[in-house]
Amino acid sequence: MKLKIETLTADAFADFGQVIDTEICTNQFAINGGTTQRFHDLAEVETIGEARGGISIFRGDARQFPMQIEMLERHPKGSQAFMPLQQRPYLVVVAPALNDEEPDLSRLRLFYATGAQGVNYFTGTWHHPLLALEEVSDFLVVDRIGEGHNCDEFFFPEGSDIQIAAMSFEGV
Amino acid sequence: MKLKIETLTADAFADFGQVIDTEICTNQFAINGGTTQRFHDLAEVETIGEARGGISIFRGDARQFPMQIEMLERHPKGSQAFMPLQQRPYLVVVAPALNDEEPDLSRLRLFYATGAQGVNYFTGTWHHPLLALEEVSDFLVVDRIGEGHNCDEFFFPEGSDIQIAAMSFEGV
Repeated sequence: MKLKIETLTADAFADFGQVIDTEICTNQFAINGGTTQRFHDLAEVETIGEARGGISIFRGDARQFPMQIEMLERHPKGSQAFMPLQQRPYLVVVAPALNDEEPDLSRLRLFYATGAQGVNYFTGTWHHPLLALEEVSDFLVVDRIGEGHNCDEFFFPEGSDIQIAAMSFEGV
Repeated sequence: MKLKIETLTADAFADFGQVIDTEICTNQFAINGGTTQRFHDLAEVETIGEARGGISIFRGDARQFPMQIEMLERHPKGSQAFMPLQQRPYLVVVAPALNDEEPDLSRLRLFYATGAQGVNYFTGTWHHPLLALEEVSDFLVVDRIGEGHNCDEFFFPEGSDIQIAAMSFEGV
């Protein structure tokens, strides 16, 4: 199965998390004596249990296509946000839950995020690890720092054959 | 008084906050099957009281120099992080506290942050609002979202004459 690529919009992503994008911000106001526009609270940092938010940088390899998608992960105790730091696009793969333990592979979604768009996965959203495009790329990441198990991995059954096709992502 | 410009390093900034920079990260490791390097927990998101962290984007005007510095602000209930999204440099002005209510204007510091460096002001650090350079620039901001008073402003006494000189910041 080849995943169909979709434009990343707030509505399309609403079940999985928030899109961090000034273009779709509905709460914008001037601060600092009018020298700065604040696009306010585009994403919520959630941390469950004894924990806090932390800021990291992920440096992701550029992926090669066609690419087999073989697993997803989720963070049961906190949100996780990604924001590109070099204005380069990337891919986002998510799935709703089938039950408490696994994602619904029949409802996988593939989004094309522009270099001006971040995503914030809700706590527990099944998603694929970072899929940078073009070249090695840095992303600011905001996620939970604390004790306790905060990463589940789900490896697809043998023979699943779920693929991101070799394609130009331009003009998506 | 003209402020002297300094290179932004973790040591020089240690009293005021954290520098978000892969170049000075001491805790880096591979994740996602070796496809991603994680520069881990470069900055701590602090929120005091009934609150959470939130992710916003600040779009700051490019400043003109020479520029008079006339005020500082601080956030008594949370940290505030800034990360440039278009790899453009910016300026950071901070001061230690003189007492519970005001910054020590005799110890103002001016730092030149590269487009690959973020800063995270500790809770309560006196700092100047965003000082973008070159052109209008976007910054990812992680700060406290919640009720209660979280911004103090301190306006300098008349005649303070504290200035950032007109200069080229290249080669700092």
